[in-house]
Amino acid sequence: MSNKNSPIGVFDSGIGGLTVVKSLMHNLPQENVVYFGDIARIPYGTKSVSTIKKFTEQTVRFLLNQDVKAIIIACNTISAVARDTVLQLAGNIPVIDVISAGAKAATASASKIGVIATPATINSNAYPRAIQQLNPQAEVHSQACALFVNMIEEGFIKHPALDLIAAEYLTPLLKQKLEALILGCTHYPLITETIAKIVGNNIQIIDPAITAVSLLQAILNKTGQLNQNLTTNGNYRFYVTDVPIKFQSIGEMFLGHPMQHLEVVSVE
Amino acid sequence: MSNKNSPIGVFDSGIGGLTVVKSLMHNLPQENVVYFGDIARIPYGTKSVSTIKKFTEQTVRFLLNQDVKAIIIACNTISAVARDTVLQLAGNIPVIDVISAGAKAATASASKIGVIATPATINSNAYPRAIQQLNPQAEVHSQACALFVNMIEEGFIKHPALDLIAAEYLTPLLKQKLEALILGCTHYPLITETIAKIVGNNIQIIDPAITAVSLLQAILNKTGQLNQNLTTNGNYRFYVTDVPIKFQSIGEMFLGHPMQHLEVVSVE
Repeated sequence: MSNKNSPIGVFDSGIGGLTVVKSLMHNLPQENVVYFGDIARIPYGTKSVSTIKKFTEQTVRFLLNQDVKAIIIACNTISAVARDTVLQLAGNIPVIDVISAGAKAATASASKIGVIATPATINSNAYPRAIQQLNPQAEVHSQACALFVNMIEEGFIKHPALDLIAAEYLTPLLKQKLEALILGCTHYPLITETIAKIVGNNIQIIDPAITAVSLLQAILNKTGQLNQNLTTNGNYRFYVTDVPIKFQSIGEMFLGHPMQHLEVVSVE
Repeated sequence: MSNKNSPIGVFDSGIGGLTVVKSLMHNLPQENVVYFGDIARIPYGTKSVSTIKKFTEQTVRFLLNQDVKAIIIACNTISAVARDTVLQLAGNIPVIDVISAGAKAATASASKIGVIATPATINSNAYPRAIQQLNPQAEVHSQACALFVNMIEEGFIKHPALDLIAAEYLTPLLKQKLEALILGCTHYPLITETIAKIVGNNIQIIDPAITAVSLLQAILNKTGQLNQNLTTNGNYRFYVTDVPIKFQSIGEMFLGHPMQHLEVVSVE
């Protein structure tokens, strides 16, 4: 049975969910964290719903075996199609997903909302659906930014080519007089600066990696499940199904910290 | 049994091999062509050798059922790891692969040779191996250009961001005083102009999609297997295992022609 000292489980199909771990490190530094990335089977975005649900079930069982006290779905594809699978398996354990977290934060302060994400997430229509469930009057403008993930994973984060590509994608959105812009891909927080430079100061940039952690903090606080050990920092364990070339260095770029306990596991 | 009017089979894991079809359309316009792209199972570059061999076997059986008179392996990954599988199944039918074709063309005129390709192809070391088999004295300098495929598939072919990215990748190679540069990825012929602008006129750019077709032409000519019907243009059939969003428009960008007979098949 999980308790206050049990870890928070965070999972993603790949590496992007590490931005959620970074946000946990920053906002809840005393919490222990288990990260799972299904690197061997990415990308999920092109797979069928039943396959994604099967993979998700395997992952959640792995996390439950780690005795997690809460789960964050740090993957837009899984949030869009397999959230129910996680909820069913998790039972009483709180589950937060990045799409619900992003939609909640955006609708709290805005009704003209932009969403940028991968083509798979945009085509799933998951953000507009989540936003309009919370505020049926909300106006949502979406833009797929296919190259952002590639640019980030290649390390071209402060490259002038990224400025040009970002301008190409974001300029059409600017005509919509948005009040908020959701970073609908867990990679995008790494280029917030570039995005902010183009969209300007009048549009609130919403990072679901941060809002998901705030939501979880509120829930754990309410149920008395926050780790009270404030004298030492949390312990972090990173589990992946494969370690491709450059994985560790890219991961540490996402995390802003070394990944000390990195282990390859199989969940099939 | 195949004859002079039988089609030439061209296959790739994805869409890039269409540059070979384009080269066939241009240089051997009377030939009939069957193209196979295993779109449902891309990318091959991250799969195990045994899986790639199994997929290749399925594909070659499909092509042989189409009664092809020759096969072009229009995929660097398959050329690198499963050429033997194709040769075994093809029997007496001539088989050309893009790596051998590129290496042959480069060593014919140069001994300081550059290779640009995807990270998977560069890491396979297949080009240096093929080049040094032909000329053990040849000097090979390789450069992975991970973003080129993404930029091309997103249609950013003449975008100023591509100029910046290409300069980033190619500038280190220019210090090597290369005599020839092999486009070691079937996507790259679409951005030859950008590459040529950076490498200048003194480096010969070698496109294996073109040299593979020249090699095949010489073989078919020698064996009397060229299609003699010079009054009508060849017939083209495109078979794929999946048709993702934008596939047809991207394919037609590669081909420079409409893809009229496009059919989804299963080869499993």
